Amino acid sequence: MTTIFEKLLEEDTSFGDITSEVTVPEDLDAHAKVIAKEEGLIAGLKYLEEKTKNFGLKVTLLKKDGEFVKKGEVVALLDGNARKILLIERTFLNILGRMSGIATATRRVVEKVKSVNQNVRIAATRKTFLGQLDKIAVIIGGGDPHRWSLSDHILIKDSHIALVGLEEAIRRAKKTSFIRKIEVEVESVKDAVKAMNLSVDIILLDNFKPEQISKVARLLKTKGLRDKILLEVSGGINEKNITEYAECDIDIISIGALTHSTKNIDFSMETSLKQKKT
Amino acid sequence: MTTIFEKLLEEDTSFGDITSEVTVPEDLDAHAKVIAKEEGLIAGLKYLEEKTKNFGLKVTLLKKDGEFVKKGEVVALLDGNARKILLIERTFLNILGRMSGIATATRRVVEKVKSVNQNVRIAATRKTFLGQLDKIAVIIGGGDPHRWSLSDHILIKDSHIALVGLEEAIRRAKKTSFIRKIEVEVESVKDAVKAMNLSVDIILLDNFKPEQISKVARLLKTKGLRDKILLEVSGGINEKNITEYAECDIDIISIGALTHSTKNIDFSMETSLKQKKT
Amino acid sequence: MTTIFEKLLEEDTSFGDITSEVTVPEDLDAHAKVIAKEEGLIAGLKYLEEKTKNFGLKVTLLKKDGEFVKKGEVVALLDGNARKILLIERTFLNILGRMSGIATATRRVVEKVKSVNQNVRIAATRKTFLGQLDKIAVIIGGGDPHRWSLSDHILIKDSHIALVGLEEAIRRAKKTSFIRKIEVEVESVKDAVKAMNLSVDIILLDNFKPEQISKVARLLKTKGLRDKILLEVSGGINEKNITEYAECDIDIISIGALTHSTKNIDFSMETSLKQKKT
Amino acid sequence: MTTIFEKLLEEDTSFGDITSEVTVPEDLDAHAKVIAKEEGLIAGLKYLEEKTKNFGLKVTLLKKDGEFVKKGEVVALLDGNARKILLIERTFLNILGRMSGIATATRRVVEKVKSVNQNVRIAATRKTFLGQLDKIAVIIGGGDPHRWSLSDHILIKDSHIALVGLEEAIRRAKKTSFIRKIEVEVESVKDAVKAMNLSVDIILLDNFKPEQISKVARLLKTKGLRDKILLEVSGGINEKNITEYAECDIDIISIGALTHSTKNIDFSMETSLKQKKT
Amino acid sequence: MTTIFEKLLEEDTSFGDITSEVTVPEDLDAHAKVIAKEEGLIAGLKYLEEKTKNFGLKVTLLKKDGEFVKKGEVVALLDGNARKILLIERTFLNILGRMSGIATATRRVVEKVKSVNQNVRIAATRKTFLGQLDKIAVIIGGGDPHRWSLSDHILIKDSHIALVGLEEAIRRAKKTSFIRKIEVEVESVKDAVKAMNLSVDIILLDNFKPEQISKVARLLKTKGLRDKILLEVSGGINEKNITEYAECDIDIISIGALTHSTKNIDFSMETSLKQKKT
Amino acid sequence: MTTIFEKLLEEDTSFGDITSEVTVPEDLDAHAKVIAKEEGLIAGLKYLEEKTKNFGLKVTLLKKDGEFVKKGEVVALLDGNARKILLIERTFLNILGRMSGIATATRRVVEKVKSVNQNVRIAATRKTFLGQLDKIAVIIGGGDPHRWSLSDHILIKDSHIALVGLEEAIRRAKKTSFIRKIEVEVESVKDAVKAMNLSVDIILLDNFKPEQISKVARLLKTKGLRDKILLEVSGGINEKNITEYAECDIDIISIGALTHSTKNIDFSMETSLKQKKT
Repeated sequence: MTTIFEKLLEEDTSFGDITSEVTVPEDLDAHAKVIAKEEGLIAGLKYLEEKTKNFGLKVTLLKKDGEFVKKGEVVALLDGNARKILLIERTFLNILGRMSGIATATRRVVEKVKSVNQNVRIAATRKTFLGQLDKIAVIIGGGDPHRWSLSDHILIKDSHIALVGLEEAIRRAKKTSFIRKIEVEVESVKDAVKAMNLSVDIILLDNFKPEQISKVARLLKTKGLRDKILLEVSGGINEKNITEYAECDIDIISIGALTHSTKNIDFSMETSLKQKKT
Repeated sequence: MTTIFEKLLEEDTSFGDITSEVTVPEDLDAHAKVIAKEEGLIAGLKYLEEKTKNFGLKVTLLKKDGEFVKKGEVVALLDGNARKILLIERTFLNILGRMSGIATATRRVVEKVKSVNQNVRIAATRKTFLGQLDKIAVIIGGGDPHRWSLSDHILIKDSHIALVGLEEAIRRAKKTSFIRKIEVEVESVKDAVKAMNLSVDIILLDNFKPEQISKVARLLKTKGLRDKILLEVSGGINEKNITEYAECDIDIISIGALTHSTKNIDFSMETSLKQKKT
Repeated sequence: MTTIFEKLLEEDTSFGDITSEVTVPEDLDAHAKVIAKEEGLIAGLKYLEEKTKNFGLKVTLLKKDGEFVKKGEVVALLDGNARKILLIERTFLNILGRMSGIATATRRVVEKVKSVNQNVRIAATRKTFLGQLDKIAVIIGGGDPHRWSLSDHILIKDSHIALVGLEEAIRRAKKTSFIRKIEVEVESVKDAVKAMNLSVDIILLDNFKPEQISKVARLLKTKGLRDKILLEVSGGINEKNITEYAECDIDIISIGALTHSTKNIDFSMETSLKQKKT
Repeated sequence: MTTIFEKLLEEDTSFGDITSEVTVPEDLDAHAKVIAKEEGLIAGLKYLEEKTKNFGLKVTLLKKDGEFVKKGEVVALLDGNARKILLIERTFLNILGRMSGIATATRRVVEKVKSVNQNVRIAATRKTFLGQLDKIAVIIGGGDPHRWSLSDHILIKDSHIALVGLEEAIRRAKKTSFIRKIEVEVESVKDAVKAMNLSVDIILLDNFKPEQISKVARLLKTKGLRDKILLEVSGGINEKNITEYAECDIDIISIGALTHSTKNIDFSMETSLKQKKT
Repeated sequence: MTTIFEKLLEEDTSFGDITSEVTVPEDLDAHAKVIAKEEGLIAGLKYLEEKTKNFGLKVTLLKKDGEFVKKGEVVALLDGNARKILLIERTFLNILGRMSGIATATRRVVEKVKSVNQNVRIAATRKTFLGQLDKIAVIIGGGDPHRWSLSDHILIKDSHIALVGLEEAIRRAKKTSFIRKIEVEVESVKDAVKAMNLSVDIILLDNFKPEQISKVARLLKTKGLRDKILLEVSGGINEKNITEYAECDIDIISIGALTHSTKNIDFSMETSLKQKKT
Repeated sequence: MTTIFEKLLEEDTSFGDITSEVTVPEDLDAHAKVIAKEEGLIAGLKYLEEKTKNFGLKVTLLKKDGEFVKKGEVVALLDGNARKILLIERTFLNILGRMSGIATATRRVVEKVKSVNQNVRIAATRKTFLGQLDKIAVIIGGGDPHRWSLSDHILIKDSHIALVGLEEAIRRAKKTSFIRKIEVEVESVKDAVKAMNLSVDIILLDNFKPEQISKVARLLKTKGLRDKILLEVSGGINEKNITEYAECDIDIISIGALTHSTKNIDFSMETSLKQKKT
């Protein structure tokens, strides 16, 4: 099946790599080192290993997804046809750099939060650009992928409420397949209370201040529902203010910036003639 | 033809938007406003207008690609089937946010550079995640897309040189089709001189310091080749130090960070029942 | 996006409908009636209406999905290019016949079960041949689609247990994303008790006799977990013995035969020259 | 090339098998036995063997397409990565169950008919759901696939006749490529005679009673055309009344129910850790 | 469905028409005339009309497939977005030129043959480059498409005979579906006689001289089989010697050169600003 | 990725090779010789070798692309499953025949031109039917592919000029990416002079007579621009009159007939049972 790798590669090589075709002999073998140009948590190697093998190249992983690497460390070796290595080089590095960037940021946030509250999960949103790969990078960084797509979770948001009303939306959702949890996004304490009373599975507090969040958590406890309903918070949360939120009695913090404004981790590929061994 | 929009949408909705299918009646019509949540240079609206129309939705653009928007401004209106609006909402916003982020950063850098040297173009690299869309965003921001893919320009890089040598690589490239320019990436003044002597069309100075760059430019002038060969610089250049480079006698500065570590511009979609007009 | 309709049509018309191309003039218009050849609950018309329109044909639905039709009733009219009507005729009828067959059987079983126990849902399995369309037919018949695919629900089955053990499988599943329920298939009362104690969301009793099922339900009640854990039963249940199962204190009965051994409802298409009106 | 297997698998695993990904370690190897849960004529193993190998799994067939299996017999063994086995399990069993169901019914009908008239072939129709696979199952059961699609045979049906008339339709068809036979479906003895006189290759008697069929056969003989024109009968024929038809002087009986209302043959897959050998 | 047009266009415009994007304003409307640069029998307009409409362009056909055009005649007009006209121009002209070239040559050969023997059909082979389009061009020229692909006719050739023997190959073929004719390619009179005795439907005489062909035809007549078996000849036949073959008592002459060595008919497209009307 | 080979094969074998399936046992191994039936310059073997290997066949090349072959020479051997050899035979031979035909004609023209003027390149146009393969055949024949598609070169033609004017078109093109050369097609000496003055990179003289061409070349020299601007000529040039053009002071002659009216080089495949060795 076509994955993101093949799609990006296709965009990048619609009718071949003309430079390499012109300068590099067709049967030349090469050896390439993938090198970290800055430190970070590595993510994507496992996925890229499989993709690279599909091109008949030998891949040797020197690091594993989830390991920290330092500047200058070699993370993988590629051996095989020179033109094929050059063909996939940029796509390989783009995916590795982005996934490692996401994993690195996720890990940093997770650790910050865990130091304050062991019970809080950091979750991604659907603000992604490489689809599943962004989600996998979040998992490697210790985060939760949240829903992978519109197809795998019922999350009633402001738009649904604006169109059919909160109670009606929940009522309809409860009639559906028994296999799914129901989550509702609310923008006021009043609506959070409504959602509790309709016994949804998860309440997402959007753009709540810490004190409002705590108020909702207390109400939930008072009603004896705290162990039945999960509390997720989102909106306006960044690395600076996250501990304020993490100190609340909540279950999940979801952060769009993990994937929508990712700082890339820089990697490069150094290619040489096959006889030169590492 | 399938473009990035359809690919991302497919990842996001493999078997539908279950929340909307469950809560929103099939034939309900809705009205949605696309709102900027922060200021920036807008990019992607033209592309998204066409994609959105394909879903039978009416689109009214209130802003155009390349215009600055302020926080709170409405940039587009969508009217039509509620489920379809909800289906494409996230993919629409993701592309708009990323392209606008790239265009905004590009514009900022272009203006900084133009204030110092009117002759220098800012160019993107192939460190992209949405393929062509990232390139188009750079153009909207006033930058140059550089090569769109491996298929449309001959750029001899360190890997090609490591495999076949500088002279040989250029010699081979010159035998190919007369329609293409030849660019060579060099890492030392010595190699830059070699490239001049072999009369390539563009020399890319990788990781050169400003004084080295100026040296190359002077040598080019001395040889009477300054109007025949373009000079491009790249590597280690960021918004802080870019004016130092821009002051050199060069033609192009290419910057990977424009696309590989983009800060998203935040947009949201506000949906209401059809009768409520803006 | 390509759906089952296009796939089946492609199989059926790889290089056109040679009979019609040979015998029917290219621009001839025709009128066609879709007629039920036996009674049943109709399903698939809404889906087929959209698909048929894509061929530039006018479609008039005289019946709606979920209505009962009698032998001889006309359920839809098609008007337009004769060759196009003939091209899609068989694929249209195949899908309509199968979906109606599934919906009819589902409705019959649902009604039988509801007469005994209002709280029991009838659910489909993944023993499907037309993917989503089979599931939609079950919903139209009043059943529950259960999981649409391997991608949208965690259901730990005998194979998973054989490979990693019951406790370990549940422990691993609980570490995953908070958005999903966890269901476990068990083959003995002992394992059902283990699953209760590990507080999963749904227990699927595979090939249990009614008395064993009742025992599990009582144990659940005794532990005060009956309102926290859903009970699903499956295996060896058919239209004859289903009331015995429905009388137990359970929530769901899932039946593979609804989709894997479907009796088709026969429909035909009667085509005439355009001038002849109904 | 994408076949039905890949299409169904794609529907079933749009973004992976989340249960196995969550519970089963990535590199675990497993052994699986495919077991018949009821007796039947097996069909589909050859096709599934190839598909399964594409996933890097080792397949050992213990039975061959066209062999009878008894309840409890192991028909194939799969060895390899546990997640991959679990990923394809349901799609594998669905295809095997349906194809075996079709082959089993076909064989039963073929034998019934042969006991009465050795010269009659049992043929399938285009009332199929798995396209070619349904046809292949019919062949394995001893039947004739009839035309595979609208693209490979000229069969003039009631619709064509309603639109252009019987004589005209035949006249047009005779002008086409010399490589194809021409078959005409008729609904009365009168039209059968017309078709004879226009020397078509095959006459399909639709919904004729045995005595009418015999009349047509005698007329054909009288005209000295019995060895030039094949007689096919169809419509209202089932396992109960088929011998009445088979006793007529005909060449082919085609039956839609072989594929449109198939009773599945039940198979299961039993998976265990690799060390456990059969 | 993707046809040859879309495939060729995709090859030609992998990432757009950069010249037009750079020079022609996005919303400019244009008018284009498709002009014959030499005389010939036109073929492909009907197909291209539909393809062109898919791009939102208005198409007016001034000539029809199968008409002769003179040098300088305008055959079609295109109106609409200038960039879209330029995007498809070359692909449109390539297909029109090739199909017209094939149709022109076919017509010439057909007329030559008809002047000698009214009963002989001119047929194409599978030596095609645009698949179905080449076959359609042959039909427009008055020829017979022969088999469209390996999937729609049984033609036993030298390779099959070399592998299983003539008798065995025919015996196996006769056991297959009753809907197909059986054709055998033979290379000697002796083998032609064998084929007659096994009562195949068509005998293809490969590389026979006219006198050998006549001998076979006489033998067929003697055996009383001339009206049961068609005779096709092929190999070494060209426009110069074709009448010698046409004078024999045969049914079909098939010629590879009609499609494998086609002389293009030259067409051009003349584009102007919309206001200028023809 | 799907290439032309797979596309053509798909057209040719939509649902298999019914003759071989019917006559040749599934597991039979065969040996095939690819034989030149006439002399020519071979092209396509390298490409076909890879495609053939994808079917699990062993390929032995006895000749290489770019070598001349004589009538009767064996150019390649195929070994493996008989049905697979028969499946790809025609597609293999079609591509080999066409590519060799193009390469042979190109070589002949190149040699003719070189005998007169060593500095002139022979280039193809976009009048191709097998996309890239036609271009590759031209390269093998010693020609230049010119632009591969609308996406990789800026060539301002009469249409662009008709729509926006010569100066404006060039002005717009010069603002675009620095990586591309700009070529302009002109139809008069006057326009050629305009193009010189706007310093484009290549001027294409369309339908110029030799004396006009020489005039443009002299003007270019006079202006001191002859080493800065390449001259290409096209239109009405054929093998007979080409030396007249080649004697002019030009750089490139492009000829559509190389690919649009190709004479095929005939190859055949001779298949035998595996034991029979060459």
